[in-house]
Amino acid sequence: MNENGVLDALKQALRRLPGVGPKSAQRMAFYLLERDRDGARRIAEALSNALERIKHCQRCNNLSETDVCAICSAPKRDRSLLCIVESPSDLVSLEQSGVYQGLYFVLMGRLSPLDGIGPDEIGIPRIEQLLAEGAIKEVVLATNLTVEGEATAHYLSDMIRARGIRATRIAYGVPIGGELEYTDRTTLARALAGRRDA
Amino acid sequence: MNENGVLDALKQALRRLPGVGPKSAQRMAFYLLERDRDGARRIAEALSNALERIKHCQRCNNLSETDVCAICSAPKRDRSLLCIVESPSDLVSLEQSGVYQGLYFVLMGRLSPLDGIGPDEIGIPRIEQLLAEGAIKEVVLATNLTVEGEATAHYLSDMIRARGIRATRIAYGVPIGGELEYTDRTTLARALAGRRDA
Repeated sequence: MNENGVLDALKQALRRLPGVGPKSAQRMAFYLLERDRDGARRIAEALSNALERIKHCQRCNNLSETDVCAICSAPKRDRSLLCIVESPSDLVSLEQSGVYQGLYFVLMGRLSPLDGIGPDEIGIPRIEQLLAEGAIKEVVLATNLTVEGEATAHYLSDMIRARGIRATRIAYGVPIGGELEYTDRTTLARALAGRRDA
Repeated sequence: MNENGVLDALKQALRRLPGVGPKSAQRMAFYLLERDRDGARRIAEALSNALERIKHCQRCNNLSETDVCAICSAPKRDRSLLCIVESPSDLVSLEQSGVYQGLYFVLMGRLSPLDGIGPDEIGIPRIEQLLAEGAIKEVVLATNLTVEGEATAHYLSDMIRARGIRATRIAYGVPIGGELEYTDRTTLARALAGRRDA
């Protein structure tokens, strides 16, 4: 029953959202058209605005409306600290923790030679430029604990240390509130390896 | 960190999608802006087109681009059969079962007196008009097997029988507590074939 070309087009388009399959796309399409046309209008407008106005910060590579983002241009941030993350959402999570006051660099990915993603693709030359400015005293590596994230951290750590700058890795272990019984063995191994004097 | 007014607006807007909370909305926003700007453009356009062109069929109340939808205007459909469903997605599921050749009426809801949804809100007067035309010999009640869906079926069944027309309910092949939208087509085909007098 392909009587609704426009409706089918909407279902197809909604499948471009991450984690949305045919059933969810249909549910979303019907929901918006039946019950929230105002919401549909807002989504369409917000997408158009974002596409038009959001680009990458020239310094940290994060998504930004301005050439240099609010974090990079904030006078209060500690310019001797640089934290390297894989994605804008990682940056948001770290900001929400409220304890980090330095600057960031967003790789927009991770090293993955098999997929053709090398140092140039994740902006390593731009990190080298930032380090060359001389203000950064420590780089905090906050890539994810995946094979690629770890490889990226090792690569960066070598490159940073070669410039006589301190490279640190955020601690990985049992999450606060987590129970040993329900913690996976990789996390536990990491927690044990990273133990400190109590 | 509200440096990105446009980005925040996009995250807020995406939360209007059913089943999408703050984390998913953020993930969708970042994904579209980082990796699928073309997809974002298509979604915005598809929503605008749908909002502009999709209305309700004057006969069956389903979403339609035309005044009378493709099913209602198809010469091959059996005009002696009317199937009443709660939503457009239920209609899609029944169509996919491939065994039903009659017409439909989409309630766009179900009786729910506590929420102020009575017969007028779900188009019962329009069903009465369709029945008054005289062509319909049987009405298949395919509301969901929920309390409200069952109540709606009972109400409709009384109203239909009072007019000397046969009222049937799809068979209990649909799992109890399940919803039509998420039922596989074979089960739905069985449910249709095994319908009984209500």
